[in-house]
Amino acid sequence: MLNVGIIGGSGYTGVELARILCNHPEVKITVATSRQFAGQPLASVFPNLKGRLDLVYENSSLEQLCEKADFFFAAVPHKTAMDIVPDLLSAGKKVVDLSADFRFQDISTYEEWYQAHSSPQLLDEAVYGLPEIYRDSIVKSNLVANPGCYPTSIVLGLAPLLKAGAIDHHTIIADSKSGTSGAGRTASVGTLFCEVQDGFKPYKVGRKHRHTPEIEQELSSLAGENVVISFTPHLLPISRGILSTVYATLNPDFNQSIIFELYKEMYSTHPFVRLLGDEVFPATQYVRGSNFCDISFIIDTVTNRIIIMSAIDNIVKGASGQAVQNMNLMCGYEETTGLETVPFFP
Amino acid sequence: MLNVGIIGGSGYTGVELARILCNHPEVKITVATSRQFAGQPLASVFPNLKGRLDLVYENSSLEQLCEKADFFFAAVPHKTAMDIVPDLLSAGKKVVDLSADFRFQDISTYEEWYQAHSSPQLLDEAVYGLPEIYRDSIVKSNLVANPGCYPTSIVLGLAPLLKAGAIDHHTIIADSKSGTSGAGRTASVGTLFCEVQDGFKPYKVGRKHRHTPEIEQELSSLAGENVVISFTPHLLPISRGILSTVYATLNPDFNQSIIFELYKEMYSTHPFVRLLGDEVFPATQYVRGSNFCDISFIIDTVTNRIIIMSAIDNIVKGASGQAVQNMNLMCGYEETTGLETVPFFP
Amino acid sequence: MLNVGIIGGSGYTGVELARILCNHPEVKITVATSRQFAGQPLASVFPNLKGRLDLVYENSSLEQLCEKADFFFAAVPHKTAMDIVPDLLSAGKKVVDLSADFRFQDISTYEEWYQAHSSPQLLDEAVYGLPEIYRDSIVKSNLVANPGCYPTSIVLGLAPLLKAGAIDHHTIIADSKSGTSGAGRTASVGTLFCEVQDGFKPYKVGRKHRHTPEIEQELSSLAGENVVISFTPHLLPISRGILSTVYATLNPDFNQSIIFELYKEMYSTHPFVRLLGDEVFPATQYVRGSNFCDISFIIDTVTNRIIIMSAIDNIVKGASGQAVQNMNLMCGYEETTGLETVPFFP
Amino acid sequence: MLNVGIIGGSGYTGVELARILCNHPEVKITVATSRQFAGQPLASVFPNLKGRLDLVYENSSLEQLCEKADFFFAAVPHKTAMDIVPDLLSAGKKVVDLSADFRFQDISTYEEWYQAHSSPQLLDEAVYGLPEIYRDSIVKSNLVANPGCYPTSIVLGLAPLLKAGAIDHHTIIADSKSGTSGAGRTASVGTLFCEVQDGFKPYKVGRKHRHTPEIEQELSSLAGENVVISFTPHLLPISRGILSTVYATLNPDFNQSIIFELYKEMYSTHPFVRLLGDEVFPATQYVRGSNFCDISFIIDTVTNRIIIMSAIDNIVKGASGQAVQNMNLMCGYEETTGLETVPFFP
Repeated sequence: MLNVGIIGGSGYTGVELARILCNHPEVKITVATSRQFAGQPLASVFPNLKGRLDLVYENSSLEQLCEKADFFFAAVPHKTAMDIVPDLLSAGKKVVDLSADFRFQDISTYEEWYQAHSSPQLLDEAVYGLPEIYRDSIVKSNLVANPGCYPTSIVLGLAPLLKAGAIDHHTIIADSKSGTSGAGRTASVGTLFCEVQDGFKPYKVGRKHRHTPEIEQELSSLAGENVVISFTPHLLPISRGILSTVYATLNPDFNQSIIFELYKEMYSTHPFVRLLGDEVFPATQYVRGSNFCDISFIIDTVTNRIIIMSAIDNIVKGASGQAVQNMNLMCGYEETTGLETVPFFP
Repeated sequence: MLNVGIIGGSGYTGVELARILCNHPEVKITVATSRQFAGQPLASVFPNLKGRLDLVYENSSLEQLCEKADFFFAAVPHKTAMDIVPDLLSAGKKVVDLSADFRFQDISTYEEWYQAHSSPQLLDEAVYGLPEIYRDSIVKSNLVANPGCYPTSIVLGLAPLLKAGAIDHHTIIADSKSGTSGAGRTASVGTLFCEVQDGFKPYKVGRKHRHTPEIEQELSSLAGENVVISFTPHLLPISRGILSTVYATLNPDFNQSIIFELYKEMYSTHPFVRLLGDEVFPATQYVRGSNFCDISFIIDTVTNRIIIMSAIDNIVKGASGQAVQNMNLMCGYEETTGLETVPFFP
Repeated sequence: MLNVGIIGGSGYTGVELARILCNHPEVKITVATSRQFAGQPLASVFPNLKGRLDLVYENSSLEQLCEKADFFFAAVPHKTAMDIVPDLLSAGKKVVDLSADFRFQDISTYEEWYQAHSSPQLLDEAVYGLPEIYRDSIVKSNLVANPGCYPTSIVLGLAPLLKAGAIDHHTIIADSKSGTSGAGRTASVGTLFCEVQDGFKPYKVGRKHRHTPEIEQELSSLAGENVVISFTPHLLPISRGILSTVYATLNPDFNQSIIFELYKEMYSTHPFVRLLGDEVFPATQYVRGSNFCDISFIIDTVTNRIIIMSAIDNIVKGASGQAVQNMNLMCGYEETTGLETVPFFP
Repeated sequence: MLNVGIIGGSGYTGVELARILCNHPEVKITVATSRQFAGQPLASVFPNLKGRLDLVYENSSLEQLCEKADFFFAAVPHKTAMDIVPDLLSAGKKVVDLSADFRFQDISTYEEWYQAHSSPQLLDEAVYGLPEIYRDSIVKSNLVANPGCYPTSIVLGLAPLLKAGAIDHHTIIADSKSGTSGAGRTASVGTLFCEVQDGFKPYKVGRKHRHTPEIEQELSSLAGENVVISFTPHLLPISRGILSTVYATLNPDFNQSIIFELYKEMYSTHPFVRLLGDEVFPATQYVRGSNFCDISFIIDTVTNRIIIMSAIDNIVKGASGQAVQNMNLMCGYEETTGLETVPFFP
């Protein structure tokens, strides 16, 4: 039984980690931190956990944390993460960090989009935690930078195409739509029920969203060239789910069946990617609560464009589920352990 | 491994049975029937099941069914159920019937509210499948009549009070609110998205809803007297969940702490009832996707009324989850097997 | 053209006043105040107003306000209202106050449920702004206390019955369900989209909600006796709408047709109450955006109870629309002016 | 007072026409047809209309219709429309047809995407009813083909750019998201509440949606060249609203301020287009219930793309509101009459 700690356990990714880990047969949550709720049971802050998890939020020092667990999920905001993670690693712990702090290979990109980095020495060591691409490195790593939600949906959608040179990477446009849980559990007028319900809107249009450089880093790595894209996030009146609709111009000599083979080849050994058949499109309601990424594509021969659609649950495959998937790989468990839940419909 | 069949597998309770049973370590779904979708994979009708359940809907004869499975869930409409169930029992199968056909002890009540009964001989044999009340009988039964969703929420809320004579049963009013999945998956204008969303309404007000006699049967049995109540169902713009707010006048000599003890005494050995603390009220969003029934109550000393609130997921504890709970009891499995899922929030 | 000011114009009732008054042919909004948004156009805070209202929020002194308008809506929180209203009246202005500060005839009730009252001398002068009951007094008043949203729905539902002595007032139970806009536009975790959507819950159960004494004051006045009720509010995952389901035991000699006549008699001259026919029940989605209150009832002869259902849009008839209706009466306009909008469906 | 008839009055566009026309001071609805609901009051099928419209659905012959009204809205499905409209015109009536039957200049396009056309002689006469482009022709027309909802949002977003040659029209991608009312009021499993709520999905991806040729016809006309685009519709869990996010590569010599001038120039005399400022993006919740089309754009200098966003209420500006706007122009009323409603928020 692995003792596991959740640092920053009172946000939506924190409670989702708790939900998933409760179902995980190999681990035990021994500590969860929250400054705001220290002393309160997790199950009183999140009544869904009642009867399933008997644990009280703590505001522990790092030493106390290290005594209580051997594996940590850092679910704190960026900046906070980079201050904690080095000490955890020094103490011999393994860490999955859900913030952006260790996602970038190029420190200048990080510092341009976020802030000064206090632990640059770890950037080389950290592995970008997208198991469908970096599984071998994740297995050997002590520090995994869990990907952003939008990047997960977009990179998984495009990876087989870029690796095979099937598309003109100058033409990539990713139009993404996310549920509101992506905005977190902080009180704000913009995410009040009455502001979001029965509505839909774009936000941070035009290279404003911090996931842009993260997506481009991964697409560039896949393409072997510098890739620049258009990425537009939108806010959906649902709690969970991201659907990305991605457009690109197809290169000559690639057609429906060749492309389908590329996807199959890349994802057949990856248990959480579900390739959908012809004329079947992903929908957020069919992946809700699960770690699946559903993908399909269609080729429009008139415009010579391929349209790729991918759907995930943003707080499972886009955050906490992927984090557990990474933990499984880092700790030698079956990749799917604790994540076999069937999505939830209706 | 128990081979299990789902008869009528293409409604919301059918797909929910499939979802839950996929997670059940002791059983295997070997057959699921649907006239409409015969020949199609369940996972193409319900894409959430893709990659988790590799089964095709059949339109099988009873003989074929009996060859394929030893335990059956009948998730067909009432009337259809009573025509199938006798033959399954004759063939030595165990059955949980999700329809109303075997819920009534008094055939005249059934026939008044539904229609003529073709298998009245089975009414004595059938056990009403509310494990928190009838566990011992369920364990020994081959035919369990799975309760209705509203009755489950209301009867569990009132049972300790009626057994102890704590309330004046002439004063019971149950104001219930249900998610739209309770209306099933049949195309109809009244349950279109645009008719339900952003709205709320009562329906079948004034002893019109067929769950009324079912609720009264169970309350009468608990009270040892004929109980007649007011029950008002309402339609919520959510998919899953029932919340019942129940009012009754308190009898003398009962107070907050005595009542709390009554609930504790009755439910402490029942894993799916969660008693909430003082000033903590149930909410459908904290039981979603789980087999829990959350209950709390408050006593208003000014009006001398007790207000009991109970929340369930109408297609889990109110239907398919309770059906699996009954199967577990009938087959000697741990009562919670396959039902340990933590509810889903947000 | 009447110059009208909105004090506290940046909440949901404030923007709704602006929306309604934009359509009102007899008035012009000349000033709207907001400390938080002073200097910003209303249309930038509420983009729905763009192109319809060219006004900037101010943080004006009372003197400045008095120079700009002759009629005021106070849409500030209670306590703040009672500090402003006396000066407005002294300056010869007419006021509709949307807070609770002037709703109570008995100052001790107000002070028990709210706080010390700084302008008790005005309580006698203020008229409770429910035009279906107090129209004659409203017409002559300079200070109208606009009713609470729950009280509006419940009092209108019960008024004909209590006036006629048709029910046993000891048995009244009001089970009410409200959209989330009733919680206002203040940032808070409890009303975030992800906390409310796809869920339903009771709150302030058991004489905790401040609308309880307000409802009881009005019911007592109608009954001519002290009335005490059970009132349970619930939170709906919709933006607008209240539906109240009200139960009471019928007195002898009252039946369906007599009761229907009572309602018709009371409401036939009131343009915003719509009596629905037999077996037709109100729904929030059919009054959305309008000043209507839809009412119907059903008599259950088995339990001898009457069940009254009433639906309003909580920020129109339950707040800003009723405020404009009161203004119309106070200023000699047709009662319906600016409020003829047809409800909005779907 | 103009007598107006609604042919096919029982769908969502029909009831919306009724809602809008109730507020229109110059017209009176004298007849509304429905085969299904003939003999029933509109207000019993759509209770929102109660007290505002006292009219009964009829199943009238064309002769009867012609006796009752002088202006008609045909809100019937395509194919049915083309069988009715010629007779209405012959009888000297003016018609706005909300179907696709008269939207195409090229009959072969219509017949390729729809079916054989029985009234090709009228295609020349019919005017495409987008007043922001064809106002002068609409004013003189007796037959206006009311545009589709998606085309309205996309064409208005792109018109100034294509007219000015500001974009490379080979690069146009329109990613559109629509509320569910666009699917109509026909009972179908796919638009049941439980299938749509809390979810999001694309549909008819890859030149499958019939609005594709309509959009391309209008864009081609604006560009003066044959324009072919990628258009992807998606289904939103809201009732009303379309948001289109449109991408194109900017031609040299066009920048932010030049482009803004193009929009201003084109739309300054059009009362229903609201140009939003820098960094302000449209949202469906700010146009709900109104005839506005909100537009903004952003230029991404890194990719050299312009991203245009436009939001409408699909059953107002995308259908019934635009139809009334066309009627106003055809009949010499002020263009905005009956359509001044302020959008509805929250």
